[in-house]
Amino acid sequence: MKDFNYYAPTQVVFGADAEEQIPQLIKSFGGTKVLIHYGGKSAERSGLLQEIEQRLKDAAIPYVKLGGVVPNPRLSKAQEGIDLCRKEGVDFILAVGGGSVIDSSKCMALGVPYSGDVWDFYAGKAQASACLPLAAVLTIPAAGSEMSGGSVITKDEGELKWSYDDNLCRCKFAIMNPKRTYTLPAYQTACGVTDIMMHTMERYFSHEEMGVTDALAIALLKAVRQYGPMVLDNPEDYYLRSQIMWAGSLAHNDLTGCGTIGDWATHNMEHELSALYGVAHGAGLASLWCHWANYVMDAKVARFARFAREVMDVDAIDDEVAAREGVNRMRAFYHSIGMPASIPALIGRKATEEELLLMAEKCSRGKTITNGNFKQLAYEDVLSIYRAANE
Amino acid sequence: MKDFNYYAPTQVVFGADAEEQIPQLIKSFGGTKVLIHYGGKSAERSGLLQEIEQRLKDAAIPYVKLGGVVPNPRLSKAQEGIDLCRKEGVDFILAVGGGSVIDSSKCMALGVPYSGDVWDFYAGKAQASACLPLAAVLTIPAAGSEMSGGSVITKDEGELKWSYDDNLCRCKFAIMNPKRTYTLPAYQTACGVTDIMMHTMERYFSHEEMGVTDALAIALLKAVRQYGPMVLDNPEDYYLRSQIMWAGSLAHNDLTGCGTIGDWATHNMEHELSALYGVAHGAGLASLWCHWANYVMDAKVARFARFAREVMDVDAIDDEVAAREGVNRMRAFYHSIGMPASIPALIGRKATEEELLLMAEKCSRGKTITNGNFKQLAYEDVLSIYRAANE
Repeated sequence: MKDFNYYAPTQVVFGADAEEQIPQLIKSFGGTKVLIHYGGKSAERSGLLQEIEQRLKDAAIPYVKLGGVVPNPRLSKAQEGIDLCRKEGVDFILAVGGGSVIDSSKCMALGVPYSGDVWDFYAGKAQASACLPLAAVLTIPAAGSEMSGGSVITKDEGELKWSYDDNLCRCKFAIMNPKRTYTLPAYQTACGVTDIMMHTMERYFSHEEMGVTDALAIALLKAVRQYGPMVLDNPEDYYLRSQIMWAGSLAHNDLTGCGTIGDWATHNMEHELSALYGVAHGAGLASLWCHWANYVMDAKVARFARFAREVMDVDAIDDEVAAREGVNRMRAFYHSIGMPASIPALIGRKATEEELLLMAEKCSRGKTITNGNFKQLAYEDVLSIYRAANE
Repeated sequence: MKDFNYYAPTQVVFGADAEEQIPQLIKSFGGTKVLIHYGGKSAERSGLLQEIEQRLKDAAIPYVKLGGVVPNPRLSKAQEGIDLCRKEGVDFILAVGGGSVIDSSKCMALGVPYSGDVWDFYAGKAQASACLPLAAVLTIPAAGSEMSGGSVITKDEGELKWSYDDNLCRCKFAIMNPKRTYTLPAYQTACGVTDIMMHTMERYFSHEEMGVTDALAIALLKAVRQYGPMVLDNPEDYYLRSQIMWAGSLAHNDLTGCGTIGDWATHNMEHELSALYGVAHGAGLASLWCHWANYVMDAKVARFARFAREVMDVDAIDDEVAAREGVNRMRAFYHSIGMPASIPALIGRKATEEELLLMAEKCSRGKTITNGNFKQLAYEDVLSIYRAANE
């Protein structure tokens, strides 16, 4: 096991009336002028946005609004928000939405006090020394950004989708009301389930073992494997929605990676898929993972065997047999929740050779890519995995 | 499941060189004059105290010291520290030790900015509005105070052992170096293992179910059940000591209670034992738990059956049979790690009738006692459990 730092200071308010506490929490973290940041129509249609506005009005907290965040959020939108925050004297950002909105908010919160180009952080050219306080009203359990320090932003020119991780960016608080997720479409719910499991799987698949962490990671994975399909059958079940929502935060607040290293190759390879095809992140992960797993498994087959036995209920005695069967069951799981397990299933056609080469090139050479702590992946390896996923 | 707030902001630095970061962390949390608070000789003998002093000197951070904290820490010592902090202008408290030292530090940190008697908080007469920043250098994994908001203090007059819980008191950071626990005697290690498991068991035994939380609680319990006996056989094994140390924090930072209510009757009944006999808290818990369990089990036998099957590897199909067998195996586990499973085994003789009546009286009437969310316990019930434990 490795030394670790664990820091997850976000104050979570979880429950059916959690929104009531928003004004008081903003004040307690020093907010006096708020930017409400959100995506598209759903926050308006559901009434959530109006409700939050009313609560801020009632508490005499002035605010401005900026909507229009898209999935795979754009640097250009964050830059628009940075300008708006500066012009309006905003000192607190409230993200209302899922990972894209929260990530866009983090980018803005980093950019407002920074004199340079906020992309510097994502390009690895600078380390932040300040960040506006921000918080999340979570409506999509998936990305785990509400408790993480990370954000992923796409630069419009060149479709560069890069990430930045900093404890400064952790949300001050997160409002989690499972009822807000009742209306999530099945596909988006399944994408969330996939992303949640992947955040813990990419921490678990490590050469480093850490008994307590591994036990918690496996417990979390088993729980999401159990509750994921159930919530698809019962989208308005408060208990089931709660499990997925809370699992989503715990899967990515670093709890399940304390002492391990993690391998983020699948995430990194997926970022190229969603940058190129605009696909949902969770679906992109599902399309790649089994192919990554089969390619890297021999680096430590016992780790895959344990995953197979303890998460996927495989009972084979031989490690390699168990490991392979675990991947097969994961593929079956993806199918069962309506997720694609290959690139053709994801985009409706085979990727062209040119596209595969482009993605492998970007994924292998990009500044922020860390492919393969579990197994080192060079350009040819990445390309091989894309090719296997393209069958 | 219940609504919940989860707030565990303590920055954990875990590793064999974790102490190196102490000066920089103190500064980052605004400390300019430190009180080093500790217990007895062991912090001096091990060299830890001198090492920390040297680090503060090297970083030009002035400090004063106050040792002499005893197990079941005393209000009088905390009051001595409050006076010292005020006189010396201390603005940061560094606890070097285990739960007793950290709890004493919390009491001091609450008392310094408070104009009244700090016992007001423990007596339920006041709610804190300020608290000096504090941090812990953990040397005894057990109480979980390094990540919790709680503290337990004994008022010298009347042997009142009462608790106060407040997010304000959570440590800013916690330094966890498993090597510092190598020299813990076997008995104290076993007391820690018992306390760690109990913190999660008292959250788990709830009428409220919460899938993800229950899964994590069970995973943590299984891990400690596994690693506890191993660490007793291998006291200088870094990996094993790490498991117990990290489990101790996670067992009591509220993670394993999100959405459940918890039942702290065993803890409350034990506080009377340690107040009266001066016994180690963990050993006191072991002496009571099986008797509490048998007494309350019928309130929700399925919960005990799940514990028996998933933590204690019982395979009985009938819930009641499984539940009873789970308690029997817990008793055997206590024996296996050298913990007493009855009051006579704890104190070397039977408690007198007078002592039982006194403890039941204090436990049932005390202001801060919350006996029995799992099963309501009145005076007679508490007395019955003490009597059963006295056989």
